[in-house]
Amino acid sequence: MRTDKERPIGVFDSGIGGLTVLREITRLLPSENTIYLGDTARVPYGNKSKDTVARYSLEIADFLVRKGVKMIVVACNTASAFGLAELRKKLAIPVIGVIEPGAKAAVKATRSNKVGVIGTEGTIKSSAYVSAIKTLNPDITTNTAACPLFVPLAEEGWIDNEVTTAVAKRYLTGLMNLSIDTLVLGCTHYPVLKETISMVVGPSVTLIDSAASTAEETKTTLADKGILNDNKTAGGHFFYVTDSPERFVAVGRRFFGERLEGVEITHLDTL
Amino acid sequence: MRTDKERPIGVFDSGIGGLTVLREITRLLPSENTIYLGDTARVPYGNKSKDTVARYSLEIADFLVRKGVKMIVVACNTASAFGLAELRKKLAIPVIGVIEPGAKAAVKATRSNKVGVIGTEGTIKSSAYVSAIKTLNPDITTNTAACPLFVPLAEEGWIDNEVTTAVAKRYLTGLMNLSIDTLVLGCTHYPVLKETISMVVGPSVTLIDSAASTAEETKTTLADKGILNDNKTAGGHFFYVTDSPERFVAVGRRFFGERLEGVEITHLDTL
Repeated sequence: MRTDKERPIGVFDSGIGGLTVLREITRLLPSENTIYLGDTARVPYGNKSKDTVARYSLEIADFLVRKGVKMIVVACNTASAFGLAELRKKLAIPVIGVIEPGAKAAVKATRSNKVGVIGTEGTIKSSAYVSAIKTLNPDITTNTAACPLFVPLAEEGWIDNEVTTAVAKRYLTGLMNLSIDTLVLGCTHYPVLKETISMVVGPSVTLIDSAASTAEETKTTLADKGILNDNKTAGGHFFYVTDSPERFVAVGRRFFGERLEGVEITHLDTL
Repeated sequence: MRTDKERPIGVFDSGIGGLTVLREITRLLPSENTIYLGDTARVPYGNKSKDTVARYSLEIADFLVRKGVKMIVVACNTASAFGLAELRKKLAIPVIGVIEPGAKAAVKATRSNKVGVIGTEGTIKSSAYVSAIKTLNPDITTNTAACPLFVPLAEEGWIDNEVTTAVAKRYLTGLMNLSIDTLVLGCTHYPVLKETISMVVGPSVTLIDSAASTAEETKTTLADKGILNDNKTAGGHFFYVTDSPERFVAVGRRFFGERLEGVEITHLDTL
């Protein structure tokens, strides 16, 4: 029989972006079993309202709980900003998001106490990063910019052409004029555009990708609860999407780093 | 009591793009009452599968039928490509899409018999325009290009900056090399980018926007059934969205040409 420790970690995102987080979790915790859900039938979340994103997050969490997960990682900044509090209120298992880990990493990295945060319209409007950073260190000034076109550019695979550079310049010039030394990539799609963003902001700015620190937080949370999987064998990884898997498999490789096997479709409501 | 003629026309789209079609309908048929539904909680449709888009279209049509519409205009190219056949099979009222009217207008416009069509990934993959044009005139060669970034650019309001021009050049150069003389804007968002597209393809290419010809088709269909509204008073226009109305109202003005009043939210399933 499966022990508590062997139960999978549930990870979800509006689509493929959260695979960058899953990748770090599987690197840090190779024996953990995981279930990933990408809500590809309703992607993206970044331009949708708080109520809608919170409702979608609850539906997905219900699905993952019925699949027997031992904790949930909300691997989507918009869902972390809009749905995390509600999920924590309703679920008995631990739930972490990507915003607190990202904020922690930024606070640790900055020397000038001037941090920039970029994300979707929803994440930026929520002020979730500004609050999280302020709570950790009130001396830090945080400025933000919404970058709605970065997600479609990443999905289109336009990683480093002249269009992506021009878009990055338009979005980031304002932040650069404020002399930030640290920039949080506050959307799980953005690490894919890291090279272009880095070129535009220059070598003096540290880019923070919350994937690695979210993986750390996952480990700490499981260790605290005594449910880290200490098996020596490699964990199994299962993938669900709400729309047909074809596109997810094709584009997902760029995000997960390896081919996605056995991706299944689910309509969350008809489980 | 409301007569059959006074029943509203139902118009739907994944979001705001279909407002360009609604605008033409209200111009041509000012006394008609209309109900518009924008599925903003699940927008966009262009990168989703046929099954998912067809399922969404049926849910929305059910909603509109319960609201008492006398016909349905699918003011979304992806939903027309993927959902129209199913809607016609299941509904007793007339249903038209935007693809046949757009194809008709293109066939009428071309002199060289070389037509280009641009649209979302879904619309282009469906080959719906290629088939519709071939049926009307087998001598015409149709070439297509998917332009996934045009929708987010239009939504972002980047109508005519250097980024939009660069994106348009990347997408359209291939088609231009095939010496087309007519280009179908096969997505209801694209008319907003008309000036940039026109600049890139040059004055020798006629741009076809299916909005006007869809309005014509709406009129013909209602006249054929004897249910044109012949009142002399201006019709009422009602708007529903599936996500919070705020963004729809803010961005929709650019598409509808005037302020959207009294926009209500609905969850289609909980009517």
